[in-house]
Amino acid sequence: MRNFSNEYSSLALNTATLGHNIDGFGAGWSPEKIIDACSEKGFGAITFWRREIGNKAFDIGNRVRDAGLEVCGLCRTPFLIGPMAPKPHSVMMDDLYSSIDMAAELGASCLTSVVGGVIENSHSIKESLMRVAEITAEIAPYANKAGVKFALEPLNPVFGGNRSCLVTVRDAIDICEMVGDPNVAVAIDVYHVWWDLTLPEQLIRLGGERIAGFHLCDWLADTNDFLLDRGMMGEGVADIKSIRQAVEDSGYNGFCEVEIFSKNNWWNHDPDKLLDTIVERFRSVC
Amino acid sequence: MRNFSNEYSSLALNTATLGHNIDGFGAGWSPEKIIDACSEKGFGAITFWRREIGNKAFDIGNRVRDAGLEVCGLCRTPFLIGPMAPKPHSVMMDDLYSSIDMAAELGASCLTSVVGGVIENSHSIKESLMRVAEITAEIAPYANKAGVKFALEPLNPVFGGNRSCLVTVRDAIDICEMVGDPNVAVAIDVYHVWWDLTLPEQLIRLGGERIAGFHLCDWLADTNDFLLDRGMMGEGVADIKSIRQAVEDSGYNGFCEVEIFSKNNWWNHDPDKLLDTIVERFRSVC
Repeated sequence: MRNFSNEYSSLALNTATLGHNIDGFGAGWSPEKIIDACSEKGFGAITFWRREIGNKAFDIGNRVRDAGLEVCGLCRTPFLIGPMAPKPHSVMMDDLYSSIDMAAELGASCLTSVVGGVIENSHSIKESLMRVAEITAEIAPYANKAGVKFALEPLNPVFGGNRSCLVTVRDAIDICEMVGDPNVAVAIDVYHVWWDLTLPEQLIRLGGERIAGFHLCDWLADTNDFLLDRGMMGEGVADIKSIRQAVEDSGYNGFCEVEIFSKNNWWNHDPDKLLDTIVERFRSVC
Repeated sequence: MRNFSNEYSSLALNTATLGHNIDGFGAGWSPEKIIDACSEKGFGAITFWRREIGNKAFDIGNRVRDAGLEVCGLCRTPFLIGPMAPKPHSVMMDDLYSSIDMAAELGASCLTSVVGGVIENSHSIKESLMRVAEITAEIAPYANKAGVKFALEPLNPVFGGNRSCLVTVRDAIDICEMVGDPNVAVAIDVYHVWWDLTLPEQLIRLGGERIAGFHLCDWLADTNDFLLDRGMMGEGVADIKSIRQAVEDSGYNGFCEVEIFSKNNWWNHDPDKLLDTIVERFRSVC
Protein backbone atom coordinates (compact mmCIF):
# COMPACT_ATOMS: atom_id res chain seq x y z
CA MET A 1 0.00 0.00 0.00
CA ARG A 2 1.28 3.48 -0.83
CA ASN A 3 2.63 5.56 2.04
CA PHE A 4 1.33 9.13 2.02
CA SER A 5 2.85 10.35 5.26
CA ASN A 6 5.52 12.33 3.40
CA GLU A 7 4.79 12.18 -0.32
CA TYR A 8 1.15 13.03 -0.78
CA SER A 9 0.82 14.24 -4.36
CA SER A 10 -1.90 11.60 -4.86
CA LEU A 11 -4.21 13.78 -2.78
CA ALA A 12 -7.01 15.40 -4.77
CA LEU A 13 -9.71 17.87 -3.83
CA ASN A 14 -13.32 17.63 -4.83
CA THR A 15 -14.50 21.24 -4.75
CA ALA A 16 -17.74 20.23 -3.03
CA THR A 17 -15.59 19.98 0.09
CA LEU A 18 -15.37 23.78 0.17
CA GLY A 19 -19.15 24.09 0.24
CA HIS A 20 -19.35 25.85 -3.08
CA ASN A 21 -22.51 24.28 -4.14
CA ILE A 22 -24.99 25.51 -1.59
CA ASP A 23 -25.86 29.21 -1.44
CA GLY A 24 -24.14 30.97 1.40
CA PHE A 25 -21.77 28.20 2.40
CA GLY A 26 -18.06 28.10 2.02
CA ALA A 27 -16.00 31.14 1.25
CA GLY A 28 -17.16 31.42 -2.32
CA TRP A 29 -13.69 30.78 -3.69
CA SER A 30 -13.50 30.88 -7.46
CA PRO A 31 -12.13 27.89 -9.37
CA GLU A 32 -8.98 29.96 -9.98
CA LYS A 33 -8.44 30.60 -6.28
CA ILE A 34 -9.01 26.92 -5.49
CA ILE A 35 -6.45 25.93 -8.13
CA ASP A 36 -3.82 28.27 -6.65
CA ALA A 37 -4.44 27.10 -3.09
CA CYS A 38 -4.33 23.41 -4.04
CA SER A 39 -1.12 23.94 -5.95
CA GLU A 40 0.49 25.77 -3.05
CA LYS A 41 -0.51 23.06 -0.55
CA GLY A 42 0.75 20.14 -2.60
CA PHE A 43 -2.49 18.60 -3.87
CA GLY A 44 -2.10 16.64 -7.09
CA ALA A 45 -5.50 17.09 -8.71
CA ILE A 46 -8.92 18.70 -8.52
CA THR A 47 -12.43 17.53 -9.35
CA PHE A 48 -14.92 20.24 -10.26
CA TRP A 49 -18.69 20.47 -10.49
CA ARG A 50 -20.43 21.54 -13.68
CA ARG A 51 -22.24 24.43 -12.02
CA GLU A 52 -18.90 26.10 -11.23
CA ILE A 53 -17.56 25.85 -14.73
CA GLY A 54 -20.12 27.50 -16.99
CA ASN A 55 -18.50 28.04 -20.37
CA LYS A 56 -14.98 28.23 -18.93
CA ALA A 57 -14.15 24.51 -19.09
CA PHE A 58 -11.31 24.86 -21.55
CA ASP A 59 -9.61 27.74 -19.66
CA ILE A 60 -10.03 26.17 -16.24
CA GLY A 61 -8.59 22.87 -17.42
CA ASN A 62 -5.55 24.63 -18.83
CA ARG A 63 -5.07 26.69 -15.70
CA VAL A 64 -5.09 23.51 -13.60
CA ARG A 65 -2.43 21.92 -15.78
CA ASP A 66 -0.38 25.14 -15.86
CA ALA A 67 -0.35 24.98 -12.06
CA GLY A 68 1.12 21.48 -12.22
CA LEU A 69 -2.10 19.70 -11.29
CA GLU A 70 -4.53 17.43 -13.08
CA VAL A 71 -8.29 17.53 -13.43
CA CYS A 72 -9.23 14.14 -12.09
CA GLY A 73 -12.96 14.40 -12.52
CA LEU A 74 -16.11 16.30 -13.32
CA CYS A 75 -19.29 15.97 -11.26
CA ARG A 76 -21.62 14.91 -12.78
CA THR A 77 -24.14 13.56 -15.28
CA PRO A 78 -27.81 14.29 -14.72
CA PHE A 79 -29.71 11.56 -12.91
CA LEU A 80 -30.36 9.06 -15.69
CA ILE A 81 -33.64 7.65 -14.36
CA GLY A 82 -36.01 7.89 -11.44
CA PRO A 83 -37.91 10.68 -9.74
CA MET A 84 -35.09 13.26 -9.92
CA ALA A 85 -34.09 12.70 -13.56
CA PRO A 86 -34.79 15.57 -16.00
CA LYS A 87 -38.00 14.97 -17.94
CA PRO A 88 -38.71 14.09 -20.66
CA HIS A 89 -36.03 11.53 -21.40
CA SER A 90 -34.74 13.50 -24.42
CA VAL A 91 -33.92 16.47 -22.15
CA MET A 92 -31.96 14.16 -19.87
CA MET A 93 -30.08 12.70 -22.84
CA ASP A 94 -29.17 16.17 -24.16
CA ASP A 95 -27.83 17.09 -20.74
CA LEU A 96 -25.96 13.80 -20.52
CA TYR A 97 -24.17 14.48 -23.82
CA SER A 98 -23.42 18.05 -22.63
CA SER A 99 -21.81 16.71 -19.47
CA ILE A 100 -19.52 14.48 -21.55
CA ASP A 101 -18.61 17.44 -23.76
CA MET A 102 -17.74 19.57 -20.73
CA ALA A 103 -15.58 16.82 -19.22
CA ALA A 104 -13.70 16.57 -22.52
CA GLU A 105 -13.17 20.36 -22.76
CA LEU A 106 -11.98 20.43 -19.19
CA GLY A 107 -9.60 17.54 -19.83
CA ALA A 108 -11.11 15.65 -16.91
CA SER A 109 -10.05 12.04 -16.77
CA CYS A 110 -13.52 10.96 -15.73
CA LEU A 111 -17.12 12.04 -15.56
CA THR A 112 -19.02 10.78 -12.53
CA SER A 113 -22.54 9.51 -12.91
CA VAL A 114 -25.05 9.26 -10.08
CA VAL A 115 -27.65 7.20 -11.87
CA GLY A 116 -30.92 8.15 -10.17
CA GLY A 117 -33.43 6.30 -8.03
CA VAL A 118 -35.83 3.47 -8.72
CA ILE A 119 -38.05 4.20 -11.73
CA GLU A 120 -41.35 5.69 -10.65
CA ASN A 121 -44.11 3.12 -10.13
CA SER A 122 -41.84 0.27 -11.17
CA HIS A 123 -41.27 -1.04 -7.63
CA SER A 124 -38.23 -2.71 -9.15
CA ILE A 125 -34.62 -1.92 -8.43
CA LYS A 126 -33.69 -4.70 -10.86
CA GLU A 127 -35.60 -3.22 -13.79
CA SER A 128 -34.20 0.21 -12.89
CA LEU A 129 -30.62 -1.06 -13.02
CA MET A 130 -31.28 -2.69 -16.38
CA ARG A 131 -32.42 0.68 -17.69
CA VAL A 132 -29.24 2.30 -16.33
CA ALA A 133 -27.22 -0.32 -18.20
CA GLU A 134 -29.10 0.42 -21.43
CA ILE A 135 -28.55 4.18 -21.18
CA THR A 136 -24.90 3.67 -20.28
CA ALA A 137 -24.42 1.39 -23.28
CA GLU A 138 -26.04 4.01 -25.50
CA ILE A 139 -23.67 6.82 -24.52
CA ALA A 140 -20.50 4.79 -23.85
CA PRO A 141 -19.11 5.09 -27.40
CA TYR A 142 -19.53 8.87 -27.30
CA ALA A 143 -17.68 9.13 -23.96
CA ASN A 144 -15.00 6.79 -25.24
CA LYS A 145 -14.46 8.90 -28.35
CA ALA A 146 -14.28 12.03 -26.16
CA GLY A 147 -11.56 10.40 -24.03
CA VAL A 148 -13.65 10.61 -20.88
CA LYS A 149 -14.07 7.64 -18.56
CA PHE A 150 -17.67 7.17 -17.58
CA ALA A 151 -17.63 6.51 -13.83
CA LEU A 152 -20.69 4.85 -12.34
CA GLU A 153 -20.80 5.70 -8.65
CA PRO A 154 -22.72 3.35 -6.38
CA LEU A 155 -24.24 5.34 -3.50
CA ASN A 156 -25.06 4.22 0.00
CA PRO A 157 -28.32 2.19 0.00
CA VAL A 158 -29.98 5.03 1.90
CA PHE A 159 -30.19 6.86 -1.44
CA GLY A 160 -31.68 3.91 -3.32
CA GLY A 161 -35.16 5.35 -3.62
CA ASN A 162 -34.46 8.75 -5.09
CA ARG A 163 -30.81 9.37 -6.05
CA SER A 164 -29.25 6.06 -7.01
CA CYS A 165 -30.75 2.65 -7.50
CA LEU A 166 -27.11 1.62 -7.91
CA VAL A 167 -26.10 0.94 -4.30
CA THR A 168 -23.37 -1.69 -4.37
CA VAL A 169 -20.03 -2.09 -6.09
CA ARG A 170 -21.19 -5.54 -7.11
CA ASP A 171 -24.14 -4.14 -9.06
CA ALA A 172 -21.88 -1.51 -10.64
CA ILE A 173 -19.53 -4.23 -11.89
CA ASP A 174 -22.49 -6.13 -13.29
CA ILE A 175 -23.48 -3.05 -15.30
CA CYS A 176 -19.89 -2.60 -16.52
CA GLU A 177 -19.91 -6.18 -17.72
CA MET A 178 -23.31 -5.87 -19.37
CA VAL A 179 -22.14 -2.76 -21.23
CA GLY A 180 -18.80 -4.32 -22.12
CA ASP A 181 -16.97 -1.07 -22.88
CA PRO A 182 -13.60 -0.78 -21.08
CA ASN A 183 -14.20 2.95 -20.80
CA VAL A 184 -17.14 2.40 -18.43
CA ALA A 185 -15.76 2.27 -14.90
CA VAL A 186 -16.69 2.66 -11.24
CA ALA A 187 -16.05 5.36 -8.63
CA ILE A 188 -15.48 4.07 -5.10
CA ASP A 189 -16.47 6.40 -2.25
CA VAL A 190 -15.79 5.58 1.41
CA TYR A 191 -19.12 7.14 2.40
CA HIS A 192 -21.03 4.75 0.20
CA VAL A 193 -19.10 1.51 0.66
CA TRP A 194 -17.66 1.57 4.20
CA TRP A 195 -20.20 -0.99 5.48
CA ASP A 196 -19.64 -3.57 2.72
CA LEU A 197 -17.47 -6.46 3.91
CA THR A 198 -17.46 -7.97 0.42
CA LEU A 199 -15.59 -4.93 -0.90
CA PRO A 200 -12.14 -6.58 -1.19
CA GLU A 201 -13.44 -9.46 -3.30
CA GLN A 202 -15.58 -7.14 -5.42
CA LEU A 203 -12.67 -4.79 -6.08
CA ILE A 204 -10.48 -7.68 -7.19
CA ARG A 205 -13.26 -8.64 -9.59
CA LEU A 206 -13.53 -5.03 -10.77
CA GLY A 207 -9.80 -4.50 -11.24
CA GLY A 208 -7.86 -1.26 -10.80
CA GLU A 209 -8.19 -0.33 -14.47
CA ARG A 210 -11.93 0.04 -14.01
CA ILE A 211 -11.69 2.15 -10.85
CA ALA A 212 -12.15 5.67 -12.15
CA GLY A 213 -11.96 7.41 -8.79
CA PHE A 214 -11.46 6.83 -5.08
CA HIS A 215 -13.25 9.28 -2.77
CA LEU A 216 -12.37 9.95 0.85
CA CYS A 217 -14.43 11.22 3.78
CA ASP A 218 -15.86 9.46 6.83
CA TRP A 219 -19.24 8.19 8.03
CA LEU A 220 -20.21 9.87 11.30
CA ALA A 221 -21.78 7.47 13.82
CA ASP A 222 -24.57 9.95 14.55
CA THR A 223 -24.91 11.52 11.16
CA ASN A 224 -27.86 13.91 11.16
CA ASP A 225 -28.26 14.54 7.42
CA PHE A 226 -27.35 11.82 4.98
CA LEU A 227 -26.69 14.24 2.17
CA LEU A 228 -24.80 17.04 3.91
CA ASP A 229 -23.29 15.72 7.15
CA ARG A 230 -20.22 13.81 6.07
CA GLY A 231 -17.22 13.54 8.34
CA MET A 232 -13.55 14.37 7.91
CA MET A 233 -11.31 11.34 7.65
CA GLY A 234 -10.74 9.97 11.14
CA GLU A 235 -13.78 11.37 12.89
CA GLY A 236 -16.18 8.63 11.86
CA VAL A 237 -16.54 4.86 11.92
CA ALA A 238 -15.12 3.87 8.53
CA ASP A 239 -11.99 1.74 8.36
CA ILE A 240 -10.40 3.99 5.74
CA LYS A 241 -6.99 2.33 5.66
CA SER A 242 -8.51 -1.11 5.02
CA ILE A 243 -10.70 0.30 2.27
CA ARG A 244 -7.71 1.96 0.61
CA GLN A 245 -5.78 -1.29 0.97
CA ALA A 246 -8.58 -3.12 -0.88
CA VAL A 247 -8.69 -0.43 -3.57
CA GLU A 248 -4.94 -0.64 -4.11
CA ASP A 249 -4.88 -4.45 -4.00
CA SER A 250 -7.11 -4.30 -7.07
CA GLY A 251 -4.35 -2.46 -8.92
CA TYR A 252 -5.51 1.13 -8.49
CA ASN A 253 -2.78 3.70 -7.98
CA GLY A 254 -4.57 6.90 -8.93
CA PHE A 255 -5.73 9.92 -6.97
CA CYS A 256 -7.45 9.87 -3.57
CA GLU A 257 -10.08 12.57 -3.77
CA VAL A 258 -11.46 14.19 -0.65
CA GLU A 259 -15.18 14.90 -1.00
CA ILE A 260 -16.91 16.13 2.15
CA PHE A 261 -20.41 17.59 2.10
CA SER A 262 -20.74 19.13 5.55
CA LYS A 263 -23.26 21.93 5.83
CA ASN A 264 -23.10 22.34 9.59
CA ASN A 265 -19.42 21.85 10.21
CA TRP A 266 -16.63 21.78 7.64
CA TRP A 267 -18.28 24.10 5.17
CA ASN A 268 -18.18 26.80 7.84
CA HIS A 269 -14.42 26.55 8.35
CA ASP A 270 -11.92 28.88 6.75
CA PRO A 271 -11.11 27.14 3.42
CA ASP A 272 -7.41 27.75 3.79
CA LYS A 273 -7.29 26.01 7.18
CA LEU A 274 -9.67 23.33 5.95
CA LEU A 275 -7.26 22.43 3.15
CA ASP A 276 -4.47 22.17 5.75
CA THR A 277 -6.61 19.85 7.87
CA ILE A 278 -7.29 17.68 4.83
CA VAL A 279 -3.59 17.38 4.07
CA GLU A 280 -2.84 16.50 7.70
CA ARG A 281 -5.59 13.87 7.90
CA PHE A 282 -4.66 12.39 4.56
CA ARG A 283 -1.07 11.92 5.72
CA SER A 284 -1.96 10.54 9.17
CA VAL A 285 -5.31 8.73 8.93
CA CYS A 286 -5.77 7.48 5.37
CA MET B 1 -45.43 -18.87 -3.14
CA ARG B 2 -48.35 -18.69 -0.72
CA ASN B 3 -51.44 -16.84 -1.88
CA PHE B 4 -52.79 -14.47 0.75
CA SER B 5 -55.57 -12.88 -1.27
CA ASN B 6 -58.23 -14.88 0.58
CA GLU B 7 -56.57 -16.82 3.40
CA TYR B 8 -54.39 -14.38 5.30
CA SER B 9 -53.91 -15.91 8.74
CA SER B 10 -50.13 -15.63 8.19
CA LEU B 11 -50.47 -11.89 8.70
CA ALA B 12 -48.96 -10.64 11.97
CA LEU B 13 -48.88 -7.24 13.59
CA ASN B 14 -45.88 -5.63 15.18
CA THR B 15 -47.37 -3.25 17.73
CA ALA B 16 -44.88 -0.54 16.75
CA THR B 17 -47.14 -0.06 13.72
CA LEU B 18 -49.76 1.52 15.99
CA GLY B 19 -47.29 4.11 17.20
CA HIS B 20 -47.37 2.93 20.77
CA ASN B 21 -43.79 3.59 21.44
CA ILE B 22 -43.51 7.34 21.09
CA ASP B 23 -45.31 9.57 23.58
CA GLY B 24 -48.43 11.08 22.15
CA PHE B 25 -48.64 8.99 18.98
CA GLY B 26 -51.12 6.30 18.15
CA ALA B 27 -54.34 5.86 20.01
CA GLY B 28 -52.72 4.45 23.12
CA TRP B 29 -54.38 1.08 22.71
CA SER B 30 -53.53 -1.39 25.48
CA PRO B 31 -52.04 -4.78 24.58
CA GLU B 32 -55.43 -6.27 25.45
CA LYS B 33 -57.28 -4.01 23.02
CA ILE B 34 -54.74 -4.77 20.29
CA ILE B 35 -55.19 -8.50 20.85
CA ASP B 36 -58.97 -8.23 20.53
CA ALA B 37 -58.77 -6.10 17.37
CA CYS B 38 -56.22 -8.40 15.70
CA SER B 39 -58.30 -11.43 16.53
CA GLU B 40 -61.44 -9.84 15.11
CA LYS B 41 -59.71 -8.81 11.88
CA GLY B 42 -58.15 -12.19 11.19
CA PHE B 43 -54.50 -11.57 12.03
CA GLY B 44 -52.62 -14.72 13.04
CA ALA B 45 -50.02 -13.34 15.45
CA ILE B 46 -48.66 -10.32 17.28
CA THR B 47 -45.17 -9.10 18.16
CA PHE B 48 -44.88 -6.88 21.22
CA TRP B 49 -42.26 -4.52 22.58
CA ARG B 50 -40.83 -4.94 26.06
CA ARG B 51 -41.86 -1.45 27.20
CA GLU B 52 -45.53 -2.38 26.71
CA ILE B 53 -45.38 -5.56 28.71
CA GLY B 54 -43.97 -4.61 32.10
CA ASN B 55 -44.52 -7.56 34.44
CA LYS B 56 -47.54 -8.83 32.53
CA ALA B 57 -45.70 -11.08 30.07
CA PHE B 58 -47.28 -14.32 31.27
CA ASP B 59 -50.83 -12.96 31.25
CA ILE B 60 -50.52 -11.20 27.91
CA GLY B 61 -49.08 -14.33 26.28
CA ASN B 62 -52.00 -16.39 27.54
CA ARG B 63 -54.53 -13.83 26.43
CA VAL B 64 -53.07 -13.88 22.91
CA ARG B 65 -53.36 -17.65 22.74
CA ASP B 66 -56.85 -17.62 24.24
CA ALA B 67 -57.84 -15.31 21.39
CA GLY B 68 -56.59 -17.89 18.89
CA LEU B 69 -53.40 -16.02 17.99
CA GLU B 70 -49.70 -16.58 18.54
CA VAL B 71 -46.99 -14.33 19.92
CA CYS B 72 -44.52 -14.38 17.07
CA GLY B 73 -41.90 -12.13 18.62
CA LEU B 74 -40.65 -9.79 21.27
CA CYS B 75 -38.73 -6.60 20.46
CA ARG B 76 -35.97 -6.51 21.56
CA THR B 77 -32.60 -7.05 23.22
CA PRO B 78 -30.59 -4.02 24.31
CA PHE B 79 -27.99 -2.85 21.81
CA LEU B 80 -25.14 -5.28 22.44
CA ILE B 81 -22.28 -2.96 21.53
CA GLY B 82 -21.55 0.50 20.21
CA PRO B 83 -22.48 4.02 21.27
CA MET B 84 -26.08 3.22 22.21
CA ALA B 85 -25.43 0.04 24.23
CA PRO B 86 -26.08 0.21 28.00
CA LYS B 87 -22.86 0.79 29.94
CA PRO B 88 -21.02 -0.85 31.57
CA HIS B 89 -21.10 -4.17 29.73
CA SER B 90 -22.45 -6.03 32.79
CA VAL B 91 -25.57 -3.83 32.78
CA MET B 92 -26.12 -4.66 29.12
CA MET B 93 -25.70 -8.38 29.84
CA ASP B 94 -28.20 -8.28 32.72
CA ASP B 95 -30.71 -6.59 30.46
CA LEU B 96 -30.00 -9.09 27.71
CA TYR B 97 -30.80 -12.02 30.01
CA SER B 98 -33.95 -10.19 31.18
CA SER B 99 -35.11 -9.81 27.60
CA ILE B 100 -34.73 -13.56 27.05
CA ASP B 101 -36.67 -14.24 30.26
CA MET B 102 -39.49 -11.97 29.16
CA ALA B 103 -39.70 -13.61 25.72
CA ALA B 104 -39.98 -17.01 27.44
CA GLU B 105 -42.70 -15.84 29.83
CA LEU B 106 -44.62 -14.31 26.97
CA GLY B 107 -44.28 -17.51 24.95
CA ALA B 108 -42.80 -15.53 22.05
CA SER B 109 -41.27 -17.69 19.39
CA CYS B 110 -38.37 -15.30 18.93
CA LEU B 111 -36.55 -12.41 20.50
CA THR B 112 -35.23 -9.83 18.05
CA SER B 113 -31.79 -8.36 18.52
CA VAL B 114 -30.63 -5.08 17.02
CA VAL B 115 -26.96 -5.44 17.74
CA GLY B 116 -25.71 -1.85 18.05
CA GLY B 117 -23.33 0.30 16.03
CA VAL B 118 -19.61 0.16 15.41
CA ILE B 119 -17.65 0.01 18.68
CA GLU B 120 -16.54 3.46 19.75
CA ASN B 121 -13.07 4.43 18.54
CA SER B 122 -12.57 1.07 16.85
CA HIS B 123 -13.13 2.36 13.30
CA SER B 124 -13.80 -1.28 12.51
CA ILE B 125 -17.09 -2.80 11.46
CA LYS B 126 -15.30 -6.14 11.22
CA GLU B 127 -14.06 -6.12 14.81
CA SER B 128 -17.52 -4.96 15.93
CA LEU B 129 -19.22 -7.88 14.21
CA MET B 130 -16.74 -10.30 15.82
CA ARG B 131 -17.74 -8.90 19.21
CA VAL B 132 -21.43 -9.39 18.35
CA ALA B 133 -20.67 -13.01 17.48
CA GLU B 134 -18.92 -13.51 20.83
CA ILE B 135 -21.79 -12.05 22.85
CA THR B 136 -24.32 -14.05 20.84
CA ALA B 137 -22.36 -17.24 21.46
CA GLU B 138 -22.28 -16.46 25.17
CA ILE B 139 -26.05 -16.13 25.55
CA ALA B 140 -27.18 -18.63 22.90
CA PRO B 141 -27.38 -21.63 25.27
CA TYR B 142 -29.53 -19.64 27.70
CA ALA B 143 -31.95 -18.62 24.93
CA ASN B 144 -31.99 -22.15 23.61
CA LYS B 145 -32.89 -23.55 27.05
CA ALA B 146 -35.62 -20.91 27.38
CA GLY B 147 -37.12 -22.02 24.05
CA VAL B 148 -36.64 -18.60 22.48
CA LYS B 149 -35.08 -18.19 19.05
CA PHE B 150 -32.47 -15.46 19.06
CA ALA B 151 -33.13 -13.42 15.93
CA LEU B 152 -30.30 -11.23 14.66
CA GLU B 153 -31.79 -8.48 12.54
CA PRO B 154 -29.55 -6.83 9.95
CA LEU B 155 -30.55 -3.18 9.54
CA ASN B 156 -30.21 -0.95 6.52
CA PRO B 157 -26.59 0.27 6.17
CA VAL B 158 -27.76 3.77 7.05
CA PHE B 159 -27.85 2.60 10.68
CA GLY B 160 -24.35 1.07 10.61
CA GLY B 161 -22.71 3.75 12.71
CA ASN B 162 -24.98 3.87 15.72
CA ARG B 163 -27.72 1.21 15.77
CA SER B 164 -26.45 -1.85 13.95
CA CYS B 165 -23.05 -2.70 12.59
CA LEU B 166 -24.88 -5.73 11.20
CA VAL B 167 -26.16 -4.41 7.88
CA THR B 168 -26.41 -7.36 5.50
CA VAL B 169 -28.06 -10.77 5.56
CA ARG B 170 -24.75 -12.18 4.46
CA ASP B 171 -22.99 -10.91 7.59
CA ALA B 172 -25.83 -12.20 9.76
CA ILE B 173 -25.44 -15.68 8.29
CA ASP B 174 -21.69 -15.51 8.94
CA ILE B 175 -22.41 -14.78 12.62
CA CYS B 176 -24.91 -17.66 12.78
CA GLU B 177 -22.28 -19.96 11.39
CA MET B 178 -19.59 -18.68 13.75
CA VAL B 179 -21.90 -19.23 16.71
CA GLY B 180 -23.03 -22.64 15.44
CA ASP B 181 -26.22 -22.86 17.53
CA PRO B 182 -29.29 -23.74 15.43
CA ASN B 183 -31.33 -21.55 17.76
CA VAL B 184 -29.55 -18.41 16.53
CA ALA B 185 -31.45 -17.15 13.50
CA VAL B 186 -32.06 -14.06 11.36
CA ALA B 187 -34.98 -11.65 10.98
CA ILE B 188 -35.55 -10.36 7.44
CA ASP B 189 -37.12 -6.92 7.13
CA VAL B 190 -38.11 -5.41 3.77
CA TYR B 191 -37.03 -1.96 4.97
CA HIS B 192 -33.51 -3.17 5.59
CA VAL B 193 -32.92 -5.54 2.67
CA TRP B 194 -34.98 -4.22 -0.26
CA TRP B 195 -31.90 -2.91 -2.09
CA ASP B 196 -29.86 -6.13 -1.87
CA LEU B 197 -29.89 -8.04 -5.15
CA THR B 198 -27.94 -10.91 -3.58
CA LEU B 199 -30.87 -11.60 -1.24
CA PRO B 200 -32.19 -14.74 -3.04
CA GLU B 201 -28.81 -16.49 -2.94
CA GLN B 202 -28.18 -15.42 0.65
CA LEU B 203 -31.58 -16.68 1.79
CA ILE B 204 -30.98 -20.06 0.17
CA ARG B 205 -27.71 -20.20 2.09
CA LEU B 206 -29.51 -19.18 5.29
CA GLY B 207 -32.40 -21.64 4.91
CA GLY B 208 -35.97 -21.18 6.09
CA GLU B 209 -35.31 -22.85 9.43
CA ARG B 210 -33.01 -20.01 10.37
CA ILE B 211 -35.41 -17.24 9.34
CA ALA B 212 -36.99 -16.22 12.63
CA GLY B 213 -39.18 -13.49 11.24
CA PHE B 214 -40.19 -11.72 8.04
CA HIS B 215 -41.13 -8.05 8.41
CA LEU B 216 -43.21 -6.03 5.96
CA CYS B 217 -43.36 -2.32 5.21
CA ASP B 218 -42.08 -0.25 2.29
CA TRP B 219 -39.19 2.12 1.55
CA LEU B 220 -40.49 5.54 0.52
CA ALA B 221 -38.53 7.08 -2.36
CA ASP B 222 -38.34 10.41 -0.56
CA THR B 223 -38.15 9.18 2.99
CA ASN B 224 -37.57 12.14 5.33
CA ASP B 225 -36.64 10.32 8.55
CA PHE B 226 -34.86 7.00 8.35
CA LEU B 227 -36.12 5.85 11.72
CA LEU B 228 -39.74 6.97 11.69
CA ASP B 229 -40.87 7.47 8.08
CA ARG B 230 -41.54 3.97 6.80
CA GLY B 231 -44.14 3.36 4.15
CA MET B 232 -47.18 1.10 3.94
CA MET B 233 -46.75 -1.83 1.60
CA GLY B 234 -47.28 -0.60 -1.95
CA GLU B 235 -46.49 3.08 -1.48
CA GLY B 236 -42.71 2.76 -1.78
CA VAL B 237 -40.07 1.38 -4.11
CA ALA B 238 -39.49 -2.12 -2.66
CA ASP B 239 -40.31 -5.15 -4.75
CA ILE B 240 -42.15 -6.83 -1.89
CA LYS B 241 -43.51 -9.80 -3.83
CA SER B 242 -40.04 -10.75 -5.11
CA ILE B 243 -38.60 -10.46 -1.61
CA ARG B 244 -41.33 -12.69 -0.21
CA GLN B 245 -40.72 -15.13 -3.05
CA ALA B 246 -37.03 -15.31 -2.07
CA VAL B 247 -37.92 -15.74 1.60
CA GLU B 248 -40.32 -18.58 0.81
CA ASP B 249 -37.96 -20.22 -1.67
CA SER B 250 -35.60 -20.66 1.28
CA GLY B 251 -38.23 -22.81 3.00
CA TYR B 252 -39.81 -20.19 5.26
CA ASN B 253 -43.56 -20.50 5.73
CA GLY B 254 -44.07 -18.53 8.94
CA PHE B 255 -45.75 -15.24 9.74
CA CYS B 256 -45.42 -12.03 7.74
CA GLU B 257 -45.23 -9.28 10.31
CA VAL B 258 -46.15 -5.71 9.47
CA GLU B 259 -43.87 -3.23 11.22
CA ILE B 260 -44.30 0.40 10.18
CA PHE B 261 -42.72 3.26 12.11
CA SER B 262 -44.44 6.32 10.67
CA LYS B 263 -44.53 9.32 12.95
CA ASN B 264 -45.95 11.78 10.45
CA ASN B 265 -48.42 9.59 8.65
CA TRP B 266 -49.66 6.14 9.67
CA TRP B 267 -49.30 6.68 13.40
CA ASN B 268 -51.85 9.46 13.13
CA HIS B 269 -54.51 7.26 11.53
CA ASP B 270 -57.33 5.67 13.46
CA PRO B 271 -55.87 2.30 14.54
CA ASP B 272 -58.98 0.42 13.63
CA LYS B 273 -58.91 1.71 10.05
CA LEU B 274 -55.14 1.29 9.93
CA LEU B 275 -55.50 -2.41 10.70
CA ASP B 276 -58.06 -2.69 7.88
CA THR B 277 -55.64 -0.99 5.49
CA ILE B 278 -52.91 -3.43 6.51
CA VAL B 279 -55.16 -6.41 5.83
CA GLU B 280 -56.16 -4.98 2.45
CA ARG B 281 -52.54 -4.24 1.42
CA PHE B 282 -51.32 -7.60 2.64
CA ARG B 283 -53.91 -9.38 0.50
CA SER B 284 -53.35 -7.24 -2.61
CA VAL B 285 -49.74 -6.04 -2.65
CA CYS B 286 -47.58 -8.52 -0.74
